[in-house]
Formats: sequence, structure tokens, C-alpha cells
Amino acid sequence: MLQKMQKHLEEHFSFVKEKKLLLAVSGGIDSMVLLSVFKKLALEIGVAHCNFQLRGHDSDADALFVKEQAQALQVPFFLQAFTTEDYANEHKVSIQVAARKLRYNWFAEVLLRENYDFIVTAHHLDDQVETFLIHLSRGTGLEGLVGIPAKNGNIMRPFLEISRAEIEVYAKENHISWREDASNASDKYVRNKIRHHIVPVLKELNPSFLTSFQNTLAHLQQAADLVTDSSERIFEKVALVEKETIKIDFKKLVRYDSYQAYLYQWLKEYGFTAWNDIYNLLEAQTGKHIFSSTHLLLKDRDFLLLSPKNKGEEEKVFYIEKINENLKFPLNVSLCKTDDILEPTNNSIFVDQNKLSFPLVVRKKQEGDYFYPSGMKGKKKLSKYFKDEKYSLLDKEKQWLLTSNNEIVWVIGKRADQRFLAQSNTKEIVKIELK
Amino acid sequence: MLQKMQKHLEEHFSFVKEKKLLLAVSGGIDSMVLLSVFKKLALEIGVAHCNFQLRGHDSDADALFVKEQAQALQVPFFLQAFTTEDYANEHKVSIQVAARKLRYNWFAEVLLRENYDFIVTAHHLDDQVETFLIHLSRGTGLEGLVGIPAKNGNIMRPFLEISRAEIEVYAKENHISWREDASNASDKYVRNKIRHHIVPVLKELNPSFLTSFQNTLAHLQQAADLVTDSSERIFEKVALVEKETIKIDFKKLVRYDSYQAYLYQWLKEYGFTAWNDIYNLLEAQTGKHIFSSTHLLLKDRDFLLLSPKNKGEEEKVFYIEKINENLKFPLNVSLCKTDDILEPTNNSIFVDQNKLSFPLVVRKKQEGDYFYPSGMKGKKKLSKYFKDEKYSLLDKEKQWLLTSNNEIVWVIGKRADQRFLAQSNTKEIVKIELK
Repeated sequence: MLQKMQKHLEEHFSFVKEKKLLLAVSGGIDSMVLLSVFKKLALEIGVAHCNFQLRGHDSDADALFVKEQAQALQVPFFLQAFTTEDYANEHKVSIQVAARKLRYNWFAEVLLRENYDFIVTAHHLDDQVETFLIHLSRGTGLEGLVGIPAKNGNIMRPFLEISRAEIEVYAKENHISWREDASNASDKYVRNKIRHHIVPVLKELNPSFLTSFQNTLAHLQQAADLVTDSSERIFEKVALVEKETIKIDFKKLVRYDSYQAYLYQWLKEYGFTAWNDIYNLLEAQTGKHIFSSTHLLLKDRDFLLLSPKNKGEEEKVFYIEKINENLKFPLNVSLCKTDDILEPTNNSIFVDQNKLSFPLVVRKKQEGDYFYPSGMKGKKKLSKYFKDEKYSLLDKEKQWLLTSNNEIVWVIGKRADQRFLAQSNTKEIVKIELK
Repeated sequence: MLQKMQKHLEEHFSFVKEKKLLLAVSGGIDSMVLLSVFKKLALEIGVAHCNFQLRGHDSDADALFVKEQAQALQVPFFLQAFTTEDYANEHKVSIQVAARKLRYNWFAEVLLRENYDFIVTAHHLDDQVETFLIHLSRGTGLEGLVGIPAKNGNIMRPFLEISRAEIEVYAKENHISWREDASNASDKYVRNKIRHHIVPVLKELNPSFLTSFQNTLAHLQQAADLVTDSSERIFEKVALVEKETIKIDFKKLVRYDSYQAYLYQWLKEYGFTAWNDIYNLLEAQTGKHIFSSTHLLLKDRDFLLLSPKNKGEEEKVFYIEKINENLKFPLNVSLCKTDDILEPTNNSIFVDQNKLSFPLVVRKKQEGDYFYPSGMKGKKKLSKYFKDEKYSLLDKEKQWLLTSNNEIVWVIGKRADQRFLAQSNTKEIVKIELK
């Protein structure tokens, strides 16, 4: 295996010779073989061990074991203990996710501090098969079947083409000692089931299953790359990002035969799951919308608008108690006395103080709102105004209103109400300004 | 299940009510349940049964059983017997491929003759899982993991969302009788292994595995559609089809991040397997090429040229024994006596009969070929001529030469040799013509 690994490194990792490599060593057979192979290849290595403290004394014994092995080989050794359970509880994630997060964070830290170039892990081909089948068992998409990459940023995994059997042979021939891998019990249960009950059947059906599987992974990885590449390209053609909102022109989108697939690619990271509802949105009426846990997807005429959900904001109201009191949130509005009436702009209007009833209220639209738009005769429903002004549904949701006694004084930043505006004979003039 | 099926048909196959449906019934539990369900739904159906004659008396008994069942239900019955083994031997395909081919050919025939609109098969969800795992075990790409479609041309598979367990429950509750499915033994072995040893483990790990799997398939199908859609789009941008040759402009191609994936999509149907060699072609010298069993892929400056392999044609020579004997193949060349010398064109030259040594030979280029191009002084290597004339490598391979005593008389259709051309004092003039 030493030769195979040497050849493999020369072919795919030819850059490692002048690099400092930090090996992630748990003390299990895979990483102990990794350590042995890389030491024999005379590469510049260090050993990093995480003590997740999940199995009491055993965890400490693992750490001690790896430390002794590293010292025996005269390889720098780095150790970090974690209170993994606390972290998991605190961040509301599984033990497994917590451990991964802690591990990679610390590795990155050591890399930087100790001037290493790459983290090297001992993930191997059987791990890939098992992960594929775990994802399959749970339900997945193409992204769950492509395996982990051999090189990803500053993480490299040189064993991905090596089988567990080869590692075991090497360990035996080279008298490698190891300790049983410490890993999350429930993950271990699933992995063991797959390792002992599914993989052997696949190998029986096809004695060169592992080789075939490598080709399968390569094909799937390629297809996944194409999917990413292509969906980014189409996104640029049919979508626009405006601040926090993504605006998808679906008249353009549906020209592509597989427009549903593109939508899926773009939206999957926003927590949506009801895909059929999303595809149906395209044919729904303006105003139909779907929420994910974090986002809102809204059909608005020829567009799908994706924006973060500002939960409950629509029910919030903000008070301005008196003149000279500035509102800071959700937007910056100030009231001050003035002697002159200037032309109103989008950002300032001049009103008659005596017509205002404090506290003024800044709120979103309500059913039945109407106002007397400045420069027009008579009153108008706010909804009609929005329509005439071609507000998108999101625009409507975002529009703040300044009200007095529940009458609209100002559609903030857009249009004043005629009733409140200061006239030439107004005595106490107030300038209301949006900054 | 009747209700589920009715709902499913209304949702996904609402068009079947006015259609004539030809059910493919083997006599196994799946297709007997299909027959029962469709009969109860009062759809207009017929039954088609193939007797593949692979299991002697058992095959005949299956046919008789299905016939009796169809008659009992007063449903039209169509039967065809096949000499499947003979067909497989004759066409050098597996029994399984032979059976599939014979089956679908015959179904299509009956459809047409008897005025049916759709063939209906009883493929179900567990079949999909098993096929996925069979392909996985053998090694596959995305196309091998997407399952069969619920509707494909005039074949429909309404049971794809029904599990084997549901079919078994229905069969029991409705006292359906059936015979064990007749299928290829080795396929059956693999299927049974997977059915009894792998699928139960997946179901144990995830009790709603079948539902998850349906979602997985839907995601994969979508990704596969995107891949097809996208690779067709990019093909139109970077490739040209010129008669039998596909010309890929790889300077344009490599602008796409996943150009390897696109190449794979375009070339996979031409029997190529050495993908890394193909990807390396892009950086290889002009002239490097790779053969599949049927095609040649050639690097030629900025292009990859894909063309059918004309096996051995390059070693073939063709003889013209005498004047007035026409060559018909590989190209149409005639020699006839004439009294006048006209201007030579691309398609005709006038030579001195006394300078020709019969038989003339029509052949492809050979190492060391040279000639005396008409209108030039002196001799020129054929390879130099090709280069100056900007022949592509394929053009060179395709160029036929007319030779006399192994000297080039005519680079056919392109340039005559000065030495053989008739002069004003030539007595016996021969017109050589390419038609």
C-alpha cells in the first residue's frame, strides 16, 4: 500500500512534498495507518487529536495513546479537549454535528497558528460507500450521493481510493496498533448495519464493486458539477438580486425545459421542502406565497420573489411621543419645528402641528386604510394607491406608514396626506423627515 | 388500494378515461393485481401476454392461465409466443435484452393493429428500488439511478408509487390468483438477493424508506433532466454537426467549469469508456486520438472531431483495370478517351494515356507520398501539401488518391500531378472524372 499511496500522491497530490501536513488522528485503525504511511513517505507531518470527552476514561486513553505514538515517531503532537455535549446542547445540534464543527474549527486554528498547509484525514473508500447508503436510506438528492471530495480547500483525503480491506492488510503487515474509533453511537449503529449487512451483499453481487463504485461516484460528481455550473449560469439570466430579495423572472425561466430543477437548485438552501407547491406557484395567482422556516417565496405577477421572513414585523407598531423625538427603528424619522414651508420631497414633508394627535404611530398597512394623496382631490384606498403605483407585493409588505389617530399622515418616503399638510396660513409648522 | 389507484390515476393519468389500454400481463402477482384494479376501475382494457418459451411447460401454463383469467373477466386477450433463445443467439444479446426487445416490439405492433392507446405495465416502487441497487452494484451514472418514468411515450406505469406490500395486501383481500413471475434466472438471482438482503436493512434503518426513496428518485430525475437540458444547450453553442462528423470547439467548451461533464454527456452514447484519456485529449497534440468500438475522437488544433470509424478502410485499395471501367466504390471515378483537353476542374483532369500503368490504384495516403502539383514547379511531399492546404486530420484520412505505379496521378477532387497531365502534343488523351 505504501507504493500505491506514493503513486497516488504523486499523481493527485504532487504538491504535498513541500507542504506541512497536519494529520487528523483519532487513534483508530484508519488514522493510525495514515500516520504510518505518511511517516514512511518522509513527508513533513504533525498529528492533531481531538478529545471529545464523550466516553469518559476511554476518550482520555485514546488521547494518551495517540500522543505516545506520535512521540515515538518524533512527530509534533497537538491535543484539544472539548465539552462536546455542552456545545451540542447550547447550539441545539446533534452530538455528531457538534463534534464535526468543533473538530474542523480547531484544525483550522492549529493550521494557522502552527503554519501547516493542509489537514489530512483518513476517510477511505468504504466510508464513501457507507455514507452513500446512509444518505440513500434517509432520502437524498444528487448532492447526497456524490461523496466527499479528495481535496476541498485545505482539507485533503488521500485514502479515498483505498479500501478498508487494504488498510487492514497494511496494519497487520506493519504491526500497527490502534484503538477502536470513538464515534457517535447512533451513527455507528447505522454505519455498522450498512457495513455488515448491505455492503457484503453488493460485493457478492459484484466482486469488483468498490472499483465500480469509484466510477459511479466520479460520474455522479461530474453530473453534480454540471448541475451547479448550469444553474448558476441560468440564474444570472433569469434572476436579479436586489438587496435581500431575489427576483426570479419566471416567464424567462419556464423557457428552460427543466425549470423545476433550476428552481430546486436555487431554493433548496433556503429551507423549502414543499417542492410541488413551489412548482405550482408558477401557475398560481399573484399573492400566493410559501414560507420556509426562514424565507418567503411570493408570486408577484411575472416574478417569484424570495426574501427573508421578518417574522411578526407586520404587526409591529412604533410610537413617536412628541416633536423632537426621533424614531431610530425600523426607520429613521425625525420631527422638528420649522418656520418655512419648503417643497415636499420624497424624504420630507411639512405638516400642521395642530392637526397631529400624539403619539404618532408608525405601522404597516391595515385592511381598510385610505388616505387623501397630496396633489389629488378626494380620498383613495391605500390598496388602490399601491396598485396604481405598481407596488410589488413585497413592496407593499415593506411600506411603512406614519399615522395620527389612525389616519395616514404620510406614506413614508412616497406620498403625504393632503389633510395634514401645512398651508400658507399654518402657524405651527412641523417638518417630518426620513433620513 | 383501489381508491389510492383511482386518486392516483385522476391526478397523474387523467387522460386514460377515454383511452384504450393494453395491459402487459405475465401472470405474476403484480400484473394480475394490475388487471384486477383496472377492470374494477371500469377502464377500457385488453390483456397482452408474451410466451418467451424459456421454461418449457411452465411458460405454456402461464399463457393458458392468463388467457383464462382474461376471458373470465371478459377482456380481449392477445398472445404471442417467441423463440427467445434463438433471437438472443442470433442477435448476440442476453436473454433478458432479447425478451425486452421482443416484448416491446410486439406490444407496439398490437397497439397499432388493435387500436390501443397505451401499454400499461405493473412496475412498482420496489422494482424501482431494486433496479437502483442493481445498477449501483454494477457501477453506473446518474442515468442508472433515476428509475423508469411513469409515462414514456405510449407506455404507462401507474404502479410506480405502489409498494410490493400494498400489492400483496390487495391480492390477498381480493382473492387474486397468480403464478410465479417468469423472468430470467440470473436477473432473478440478483433481484432476490437485493430484495431479501439489502432492502429490508434499508427499511429497518428508515421505516419510511420507500417514501424517502420516491423523493430521492424525484430529485435525481430532476437533476438528470437538468443535465440533459443543459448539455443540449451547451452543445449548440460549442459544437457543429457536419454530415457524419461532430466538431467540438474546445476553446469555447473549456470556458464552462464543468466541461468534462459536458463531454461525458455528449460522448457516452458513442461507446467511449476511457474518460480520463478523453479529458487529456484537450491538452494533447494535434493528431492524438481515441477509438471507441464504433467511433473515432480526434484532436485537431482547436477542435475535437468525432466521426464513425470506417474500420480498415484506410488499408483498402481499389483497382481500375482499364479505360472505360468505372470505379463505383468508395467513390465514383470514370476514365474515358477524349480528343480535347479542357481546363481541369476539381472534378475532372485530362492525362496522357501513355504515362499510365494499369491497373490504376485508388488508395489513401501512405508514409513518404509525394507528387508534382499541377501549376507548380517541382515535387512536394503530400504531407506538406495537406498542411499548406489546411487539411484537418480527418480530411487527410478521408482523402483518396489515384495512383499509377504507386505515383500519385490525382489527389482526387483537389489537385492533379503535373507529370501525368496531357500536353498539347499528347496523342491519346484520357479524361478522368469524379462524379
